[in-house]
Amino acid sequence: MTAGPPDLVLAVDVGGTTTKAEITDAAGTVLTTGTIPTPHGPAAFDAIEDLGDRLLTELPAAQRIRVDRAAVVLPGIVDPVGARAVFSSNIGWRDVPLGDRFTARWRVPVLLEHDVTVAGWAEWRHGAGRGHDNVCVLILGTGLAGILAVAGRLIRSGPGEAGEYGHIPIRPHDGLPCPCGNVGCVETVAAGGAIARAYTARTGHDIPSAATVFERAPHDPIARAVIDDAVDALATGLLGILHATRVDLIVLGGGLSGAGDILTTALHTDLSRRLRVVPVPAVTLGAFGIRAGLIGAAHYARAGALE
Amino acid sequence: MTAGPPDLVLAVDVGGTTTKAEITDAAGTVLTTGTIPTPHGPAAFDAIEDLGDRLLTELPAAQRIRVDRAAVVLPGIVDPVGARAVFSSNIGWRDVPLGDRFTARWRVPVLLEHDVTVAGWAEWRHGAGRGHDNVCVLILGTGLAGILAVAGRLIRSGPGEAGEYGHIPIRPHDGLPCPCGNVGCVETVAAGGAIARAYTARTGHDIPSAATVFERAPHDPIARAVIDDAVDALATGLLGILHATRVDLIVLGGGLSGAGDILTTALHTDLSRRLRVVPVPAVTLGAFGIRAGLIGAAHYARAGALE
Repeated sequence: MTAGPPDLVLAVDVGGTTTKAEITDAAGTVLTTGTIPTPHGPAAFDAIEDLGDRLLTELPAAQRIRVDRAAVVLPGIVDPVGARAVFSSNIGWRDVPLGDRFTARWRVPVLLEHDVTVAGWAEWRHGAGRGHDNVCVLILGTGLAGILAVAGRLIRSGPGEAGEYGHIPIRPHDGLPCPCGNVGCVETVAAGGAIARAYTARTGHDIPSAATVFERAPHDPIARAVIDDAVDALATGLLGILHATRVDLIVLGGGLSGAGDILTTALHTDLSRRLRVVPVPAVTLGAFGIRAGLIGAAHYARAGALE
Repeated sequence: MTAGPPDLVLAVDVGGTTTKAEITDAAGTVLTTGTIPTPHGPAAFDAIEDLGDRLLTELPAAQRIRVDRAAVVLPGIVDPVGARAVFSSNIGWRDVPLGDRFTARWRVPVLLEHDVTVAGWAEWRHGAGRGHDNVCVLILGTGLAGILAVAGRLIRSGPGEAGEYGHIPIRPHDGLPCPCGNVGCVETVAAGGAIARAYTARTGHDIPSAATVFERAPHDPIARAVIDDAVDALATGLLGILHATRVDLIVLGGGLSGAGDILTTALHTDLSRRLRVVPVPAVTLGAFGIRAGLIGAAHYARAGALE
């Protein structure tokens, strides 16, 4: 193997419910893919090893030897340098040393990173934010977090964590309790679960997910009101960063980006009403939807750095 | 003249009320200084030229030839590269080309910059934020703006502008109108003028400035309530940036930094109550007070860049 750019890469996105992996070529073509339920606790890491191994084994030998890099992206708090899974409340681990276990098993260099950070970076560099230097990417799903790029550089929030936009307490006096211990955090209103719960609370109808609320919004005033409230929360949470850093593009990525233009149009309108001394940023949907973490892991494996 | 670091520098800080200038050596010793009322409109630039010239003339000839750099810091919006004073509502100019008029008059290279940006940068690099890589400096005075440093780099907000922390609309439904056209901006509660006005509104007593409110706070419940309200506004305005970028030190600089520990202690306590998922930053007073702009201009003249 020469020291040129990676040829084929193995990307693994470890989520609270499922873990997805795929092996792709430089054009992004998926050569093999697999999804497993994520086991609870540190057992998840055995399952990740097995999943990667299975995908590598599935490849014809001539392709197998062309896989020369991998990346695993994890939720919670990750220490990429120390190779530790520091904390995940969803999956249930705390300070698990990973060392070179994936590298030893798969026989390729393996990069570790934080899932939302990689998803947001991928949307910025390779997706909807491509070509923009001052971008905030929010990854909207069960929770809500994001990344910030200023002057063409990724602004890391903490070590191995994304920007905690979902936990900005915007309604401390009259909001809903958040599992973090605070009241009225952005994600108690604007994350997918919160949107679905708010609709159910106001209508009595159980719905499978926030997607239903977005589908119904054009002809259902309650669905529309729930979405407007989510947009109000998003806009309020973004005000600080918009005044402090002059972001000119907001990308709404992750699962909720399937909601379509209703979300981006409403957020842009809301921000237009609120901003006076700083320009109103453009608002656009993410390009990769729920696949941003996995696509990002592949790009990260190739790039070797979040730049 | 050799190409070594600047020896003596001329620093000019152009404010809405007065313009201050001084010539200092590398140790910061003031060799000569002057203050004039700032004329309204573009006439201010003639007065700046004259003031700099006067200071240079006051120096003994042996010192005069050692002045080899100058910096002029301006309010509003500044285009340092295009050498234009883009906008100042206070002083009353719009898109004034400055070209090399100061250089031509003073016979030294002259840097232009934005006053709050330079003041904040000086507090970060040479004052209360020295040695910290993730810092937000708020310059509290008649208005309120600031700078952000992340991972050891100054994050510019817009070209020639500081972070508009004062215009984050935190009380859009029940706040005071702001001259910017919005309602409930941070600076309608937390800037010096706002603190003084709030005290007068609640007591009927005219007071010279916010400093009086801080003096009275230990034994005057209304003064204390006004300050607590200002702190609440500051804390609310900072929540977004604290979640998005993980700042670990907040410096309160500018005129209000003379208020003493009452402001920093109250802000730290308030933030401690509100933050759950991100660490509570330290809060400290600026080292340079109202002189941050002028001291910053001298440092900037020496450094040649805001790094």
